[in-house]
Amino acid sequence: MKLCQYKAVVEYDGTNYHGFQRQDDLPTVQSAIEEALNNLFKEHIEVTVSGRTDKGVHALHQVIHFWALPKYPAIQVMGALNFRLNNSGIAILAVEETDGNFHARFDAKERFYIYKIINRQAPLTLMHNRAWHIKHSINAELMHEGGQAFIGQHDFSSFRSSYCQAKSPIRSINSVNVTREDELVTIRIAARSFLHNQVRIMVSALVKVGQEQWTADDIRTALVSCNRTAAPFTAPAHGLYLAGIEY
Amino acid sequence: MKLCQYKAVVEYDGTNYHGFQRQDDLPTVQSAIEEALNNLFKEHIEVTVSGRTDKGVHALHQVIHFWALPKYPAIQVMGALNFRLNNSGIAILAVEETDGNFHARFDAKERFYIYKIINRQAPLTLMHNRAWHIKHSINAELMHEGGQAFIGQHDFSSFRSSYCQAKSPIRSINSVNVTREDELVTIRIAARSFLHNQVRIMVSALVKVGQEQWTADDIRTALVSCNRTAAPFTAPAHGLYLAGIEY
Repeated sequence: MKLCQYKAVVEYDGTNYHGFQRQDDLPTVQSAIEEALNNLFKEHIEVTVSGRTDKGVHALHQVIHFWALPKYPAIQVMGALNFRLNNSGIAILAVEETDGNFHARFDAKERFYIYKIINRQAPLTLMHNRAWHIKHSINAELMHEGGQAFIGQHDFSSFRSSYCQAKSPIRSINSVNVTREDELVTIRIAARSFLHNQVRIMVSALVKVGQEQWTADDIRTALVSCNRTAAPFTAPAHGLYLAGIEY
Repeated sequence: MKLCQYKAVVEYDGTNYHGFQRQDDLPTVQSAIEEALNNLFKEHIEVTVSGRTDKGVHALHQVIHFWALPKYPAIQVMGALNFRLNNSGIAILAVEETDGNFHARFDAKERFYIYKIINRQAPLTLMHNRAWHIKHSINAELMHEGGQAFIGQHDFSSFRSSYCQAKSPIRSINSVNVTREDELVTIRIAARSFLHNQVRIMVSALVKVGQEQWTADDIRTALVSCNRTAAPFTAPAHGLYLAGIEY
């Protein structure tokens, strides 16, 4: 029987997972999904993801693809996977059969992240592990203005993890938007692709702008420095949500 | 030394608590707050709440008052309580000293609840225990229209728990608003006060309207029946948020 290619949209609470990618003896999103797939199809299936997420990072709209014998229609695959993933913090939002020419990673035209900050004195309750808690007042309008310095193509060497394995540090940011609704500050960043930790280091720089410690000029200086030490620390993982992939 | 009256605003994730009210040997929000107060002031302090919430119900803005020796300014009380409540799922959003004539329960002019429903096929991840998951499609516009049948003063005997201890079943609803944003349906209900389980039974009736099983006329019929069996089951606690108190 010929294999069929499935595309799936996945949502997850990253709190209890050591990131997306399979690792020996550690709970990961990939392992949980592949275990559900193997249990359903009774064969060994590996999934390909649009891009890994780190430990503690959430996804509202992650995309994967995999190949399997066409035993079940897509809607049934979705139900059966969700049944097996019950209470795992992972949900399959959609499954469709492709024409066999889809690649979750290489076909992505734009990736879209959301970063949530709760800006208030009191500690977090319902948003614990779902946002970065910042006590000192930050100015979202300044953050939005400062964020425009990231737009366009730059060498992001200052804004990537020292473990980043990408060959080129050149990336092109399509949009940066920062909005505030009461105590919730939301940062939205879109690009074709990102370096390792890039969004979280950009967020950290924007927070410095929001605290009036940095300006857009400091962001430009950090960019041209091409040196990780020129940018601030990496913002916490638990405020970050992979929110969409355009193909 | 003369006692000072403090008013405090409290937020909590109700998931791990057996409701607000103190109960022997069970974790409750009141017990946790009073333990923190007793530890801080080194005296036995009881709090008075605007209104109890049930097991699993959340609060974005609950109000309490308590009396204590004026050892610390209000801002310091807030910090010290939050330090003691660290990682409890309870946070003190604000503390102020009153003129001594404030009553959290009796002075409340309006109470405001939010109920969250996620209307989609896939199970919940990040909203697990934070919304009611309804798979079958519900129409939020119909729910909003139907909800207007609750406005004004009615006998809510059909819409209160059989354990409700209020003397009168007469209550007056100020507003009902239902909105949808993608898969999230939010119901907002305001009244001076509510009967036990009233909001959750009203929500359940609105869901029947959203499923086109009930109309506004069925709500009116249930109201005039004055009989708990005339209204549907009580909606789950974990979708409900006490969202504000007006004084």
